[in-house]
Amino acid sequence: MVNYPNGMKKKATVQLRSTSNRGMDLEHEINITNQYYLDNDIAVIYKKPTPITIVKVDYPKRSAAKITEAYFQIPSTTDYNGIYEGKYVDFEAKECSSRTSFPLKSIHAHQLRHLDAIIKNGGIGFLIIRFTLYNETYFVKAMDLFAFIKANTRKSIPYTWFKENCDLIPVSYIKPVDYLQVVNREYFKKGGETSNG
Amino acid sequence: MVNYPNGMKKKATVQLRSTSNRGMDLEHEINITNQYYLDNDIAVIYKKPTPITIVKVDYPKRSAAKITEAYFQIPSTTDYNGIYEGKYVDFEAKECSSRTSFPLKSIHAHQLRHLDAIIKNGGIGFLIIRFTLYNETYFVKAMDLFAFIKANTRKSIPYTWFKENCDLIPVSYIKPVDYLQVVNREYFKKGGETSNG
Repeated sequence: MVNYPNGMKKKATVQLRSTSNRGMDLEHEINITNQYYLDNDIAVIYKKPTPITIVKVDYPKRSAAKITEAYFQIPSTTDYNGIYEGKYVDFEAKECSSRTSFPLKSIHAHQLRHLDAIIKNGGIGFLIIRFTLYNETYFVKAMDLFAFIKANTRKSIPYTWFKENCDLIPVSYIKPVDYLQVVNREYFKKGGETSNG
Repeated sequence: MVNYPNGMKKKATVQLRSTSNRGMDLEHEINITNQYYLDNDIAVIYKKPTPITIVKVDYPKRSAAKITEAYFQIPSTTDYNGIYEGKYVDFEAKECSSRTSFPLKSIHAHQLRHLDAIIKNGGIGFLIIRFTLYNETYFVKAMDLFAFIKANTRKSIPYTWFKENCDLIPVSYIKPVDYLQVVNREYFKKGGETSNG
């Protein structure tokens, strides 16, 4: 795992985590959840590869091309997308180490434009934001985020806003970030489990 | 542009291309088309970044992290996905330099499994296959491809099969690979243009 060049370093250790998830970071937990959804025919949702500009490649053997110079790009879309119940699903996930607020600068402007386009085209667009110090992971509808940005000039969203306006994402051992439970409630008006029944 | 390690080298020059598109390869033409769809609020469809395993990164400055060792991964999904008319759209694009047949080995088994999962979840899954020597680009419904594979033991699909079973994708200067016209006909029973009207 590498540090990304956008100033958001991944925390190596997190206090206050529940025992079952100690040491797992959000991306890893979402990947496990997505794999569960995939294996159980619930949804097909993947993390996109990190966009990279390749400058130099060595070809010692054709089967083992080696990239020797490349740079991280600023992503033009969100990290995750896929299909659930026939609907297009698209989201970004962020960890936040502050106790008091989530800095808006950790989401790029073109990621917001992308989520806006998704919603306008009839997709389900949201963010998954984890306050690591509280070990709370919130489901933030893109619509709600846009409404906040429109109504406020501040550069961060207070923690209390998440508590008041967003759903907590349920945690379980096999589905560490079971965000489709919230999708069920918020978009399909279904309660409860993400089974394939 | 680099050569990918799967044995499919991109052709630097292609004979018999129409004048307007000379020198453009399929990926580039699809990107132009997708940009047109995006700019005109028709669809939000992107090529995914090439999946890469990063081994070494130098941090001369925080703002210019330099990857110094990385390798191409075999992709676990298709190259393109997004949303059109509220529906999830997913496809792979391949150029074929043979006059007679398309080799099935140029599509990975897990890409076929992925397209199968997409269809089962209610998405629109297909391939865009260009016979470069004829400058013909076919829209191949994943369902039709699976039917061929099930009914045949051969390791390639004859060119004549494409002519008989698949739609030719319309070409225009602003939409070099206007595959959504075929999606309209085949999945939405709409004729003609991909406008946003």
